[in-house]
Amino acid sequence: MNAVNTQCRLAARPKDLPKATDWVIVEEPKPVAGEGEFVVEVNYMSIDPAMRTWMNAGRSYVPPVEIGEVMRALGVGRVVESRHSGFAVGDDVSGIFGVQRYAASSGDGVNKIDTTVAPATVYLGALGISGLTAYFGLLDIGKPEPGQTVLVSGAAGSVGSIVGQIARIKGCRAVGVAGGEDKCRWLVEEVGFDAAIDYKSADLRAELKAHAPNGVDVYFDNVGGATLEAALNRLAHGARIVLCGAVSQYNDTPRGPANYMQLLVARASMTGFVVFDYADRYPEGIAQLAKWLHSGELQSHDQIERGGVGDFPATLLKLFRGENTGKLILGLE
Amino acid sequence: MNAVNTQCRLAARPKDLPKATDWVIVEEPKPVAGEGEFVVEVNYMSIDPAMRTWMNAGRSYVPPVEIGEVMRALGVGRVVESRHSGFAVGDDVSGIFGVQRYAASSGDGVNKIDTTVAPATVYLGALGISGLTAYFGLLDIGKPEPGQTVLVSGAAGSVGSIVGQIARIKGCRAVGVAGGEDKCRWLVEEVGFDAAIDYKSADLRAELKAHAPNGVDVYFDNVGGATLEAALNRLAHGARIVLCGAVSQYNDTPRGPANYMQLLVARASMTGFVVFDYADRYPEGIAQLAKWLHSGELQSHDQIERGGVGDFPATLLKLFRGENTGKLILGLE
Repeated sequence: MNAVNTQCRLAARPKDLPKATDWVIVEEPKPVAGEGEFVVEVNYMSIDPAMRTWMNAGRSYVPPVEIGEVMRALGVGRVVESRHSGFAVGDDVSGIFGVQRYAASSGDGVNKIDTTVAPATVYLGALGISGLTAYFGLLDIGKPEPGQTVLVSGAAGSVGSIVGQIARIKGCRAVGVAGGEDKCRWLVEEVGFDAAIDYKSADLRAELKAHAPNGVDVYFDNVGGATLEAALNRLAHGARIVLCGAVSQYNDTPRGPANYMQLLVARASMTGFVVFDYADRYPEGIAQLAKWLHSGELQSHDQIERGGVGDFPATLLKLFRGENTGKLILGLE
Repeated sequence: MNAVNTQCRLAARPKDLPKATDWVIVEEPKPVAGEGEFVVEVNYMSIDPAMRTWMNAGRSYVPPVEIGEVMRALGVGRVVESRHSGFAVGDDVSGIFGVQRYAASSGDGVNKIDTTVAPATVYLGALGISGLTAYFGLLDIGKPEPGQTVLVSGAAGSVGSIVGQIARIKGCRAVGVAGGEDKCRWLVEEVGFDAAIDYKSADLRAELKAHAPNGVDVYFDNVGGATLEAALNRLAHGARIVLCGAVSQYNDTPRGPANYMQLLVARASMTGFVVFDYADRYPEGIAQLAKWLHSGELQSHDQIERGGVGDFPATLLKLFRGENTGKLILGLE
């Protein structure tokens, strides 16, 4: 066992996409468990669009990562040392362990995972925050009814690909927006969307009209920008927009939807959603998601990149360049 | 009785504020009631911000007024001829009679009004669409709870001044945003708001912080623009934004709220609202509003400008220059 704890710390606040100089890779001694603590060896790290927002100063739904701090990240790993009565050496766990090889933990926000139910990586995807975000965001805020049309942006991402699948399970028409012909083909042929629109080449307005002829009843937004505006122009009466993210806005001067008054025309609503508010109901969500995984109605699409902690900055850029389909995970070697 | 029907018709679609050349004043013979129709002599005409949107082409919540058509307007008047079994000569009525002295009607959308309950003009204000807009928008969409803070923009307007009064009746703190020191004083001293902010001179952000120290629970938006952005930055957890209008945007290239993702930070919603959807419940709304008027808890603030149909264009501009407090009405001489 390596006694060195490699960490990726935030060195500066990026303006647009994070540059190499915004990070510093440091080596520290492996932490030792204090009384009531345990130490986790992290095996897989979740690479998430929200990471970009955590790097900004200012008011948000979680405090920013401070300069000099270990970058925040969800991960799964195994307990390698324990002085905590609830966690034993060998337990598989998920939690916010940060971008580092080892994390000391008090158990706060840490869950044991059962790798006989699904591989550990699935607890970062369909059985993790991505799956729970899709589940509660779509069902509790979006409230889709059978026969309605659910549109999701960032559809080839970890949350979007699950939103489309749950929409289909609930008897809805699932339409995805993603970047590139390959991703769109993947969404329809592999993930089971009814249609997918390539925002990079398509006339969004015309394609939306073709694929949502009766309007969009639920729009699950991960991107903002021009896609949000196109969706606003296509809302069905009484439509619900679930605001989950705005990845098109994270690296730019943010721009609001100029046609937001279409909410009035369509008598529609736009509601901000943060999955952490549903922590009390995670067991319900995970139980249902696991059931769908076992029945084969839901599939977890994970893209695991192998590397070390030092490969985190490059892996995060892959996400922002849209070089992933499904859940992007850094698997530590 | 004058046999001439003076009308104001739309001559061109304005770009910004309507110019004199966007209108044409014509004289036609007074209409004659066909079988099942009646003729109304219009006495009072409602001057509304929404009129500007009715002049634009394109999809909205009602069809646009076409070039050459009589401008759409709500009014109150008296039946002067009838071949309709439900309406008799001498009946006082309200309806969409247009900017003209006389209107022939089939009775569709026309309501009899009881001028012993309140003066006819109040049926354009507190007992009319303005009152109903405030009532259903605030209570059904905004859902204020006692002790919460209700912010309303366009607070010195017909809808805004009633929203603030209903908020107070419901045990909320009412904060208004209006243009000018006089209007703000009027809102606090005459209308009963807890506080009023002059958007023309104040540091909106600082004033909102001072007057909504625990955040804004309900924001009833009539204006959009910078006021909407300031409100978004001050939302309480779980806040509701009622989108009723966007008068700051009607005469400009529309601009979306750049900080709309504050909806996510605050887990808040923004919902479009059109009072016409509540037509089935108008009797409930009017009964409650009348009760509050009689108890003195609610006051109707009406500003009646005397003039002819030909004065309509100038009266409408008064509204857009903010030269009214309360409901602006053109009283036909």
